[in-house]
Amino acid sequence: MAEDRSSEPSFESRVPEGDNRERLVCDTCGHIQYDNPKIVVGAVCDWEGRVLLCRRDIDPRSGYWTLPAGYLELEETPVEGALREAREEAEADLEIDQLLAIYHVRRLSQIQLIYRARLLSAEVAAGHETREVGLFAWGEIPWDDIAFPTVHWALRDWRAVEGQAEFATRANPEGESADRLHRAR
Amino acid sequence: MAEDRSSEPSFESRVPEGDNRERLVCDTCGHIQYDNPKIVVGAVCDWEGRVLLCRRDIDPRSGYWTLPAGYLELEETPVEGALREAREEAEADLEIDQLLAIYHVRRLSQIQLIYRARLLSAEVAAGHETREVGLFAWGEIPWDDIAFPTVHWALRDWRAVEGQAEFATRANPEGESADRLHRAR
Repeated sequence: MAEDRSSEPSFESRVPEGDNRERLVCDTCGHIQYDNPKIVVGAVCDWEGRVLLCRRDIDPRSGYWTLPAGYLELEETPVEGALREAREEAEADLEIDQLLAIYHVRRLSQIQLIYRARLLSAEVAAGHETREVGLFAWGEIPWDDIAFPTVHWALRDWRAVEGQAEFATRANPEGESADRLHRAR
Repeated sequence: MAEDRSSEPSFESRVPEGDNRERLVCDTCGHIQYDNPKIVVGAVCDWEGRVLLCRRDIDPRSGYWTLPAGYLELEETPVEGALREAREEAEADLEIDQLLAIYHVRRLSQIQLIYRARLLSAEVAAGHETREVGLFAWGEIPWDDIAFPTVHWALRDWRAVEGQAEFATRANPEGESADRLHRAR
């Protein structure tokens, strides 16, 4: 759900003409790489009160539970991306309800858009990058084995608005940047 | 609010090992450039029922009216970005209320996060990249001179939830990708 795609090419950091902050400029070809924040899209998917979780089979946090979520691709809408990730990671078909939350992880320059969704069937299965999938009642959620703080938040926020037809999109808990916890993984 | 940052370096498109779709790979240095969707952050800012608009002084759509908005920077939260853009473009100080809308412009791979906000003072002024600023009552909005369709949508959505303390985050109007209209500019 949150791996870092940055690598270390031969770029130098300087302020291009007409700009007002440092950007990465390729030493070799002069290309300016606007290194933008990255968007993760995902969903809390419910089946008769149970929540879909995926046990990761890749680093970081392999073996820990997460929501179906991943990087938004070019020319993809956030809803399309959330549907794709659920299909890829859990072979799940969803109906997206509304935007549950927007979280940020400052250190990773990552913005997460998490939707509230309903599973169209309980037929789910471990997909690409997933060791196993499960549908968990609230009391059965493996809290000690959750992969990322934002997954905690999303589950808590999902629970907080349960039964509400309309609600304001949630955000990071007050004062929480998720940096410390994400750094620890 | 919506310019395209892409340029044309010497990159070729191929599927890197372990990946499942084509990425841009630098011909010269081999660096894989994950070209991610871009995030625009902005706000509909209200002062006693009047809305802040900025007349653009840069292309595209120079001379047309827009909301204070721009690209989210690295390690910046969406709220911080929206505050920064209002300061840069309109010398405006805001209090952010809640996320009004999330729009996508597919052709530009652009995701826009637009907040509802209140101006802390009516002291606003044209900043960087802005020709003039104005506070418009609903009936005075220069509809024919609005820069982008997403600005239309944001104003309409802002009006639709006026007076509501909490509301579900809005999205593109049904079936609207903004592509055609953005392409026309």
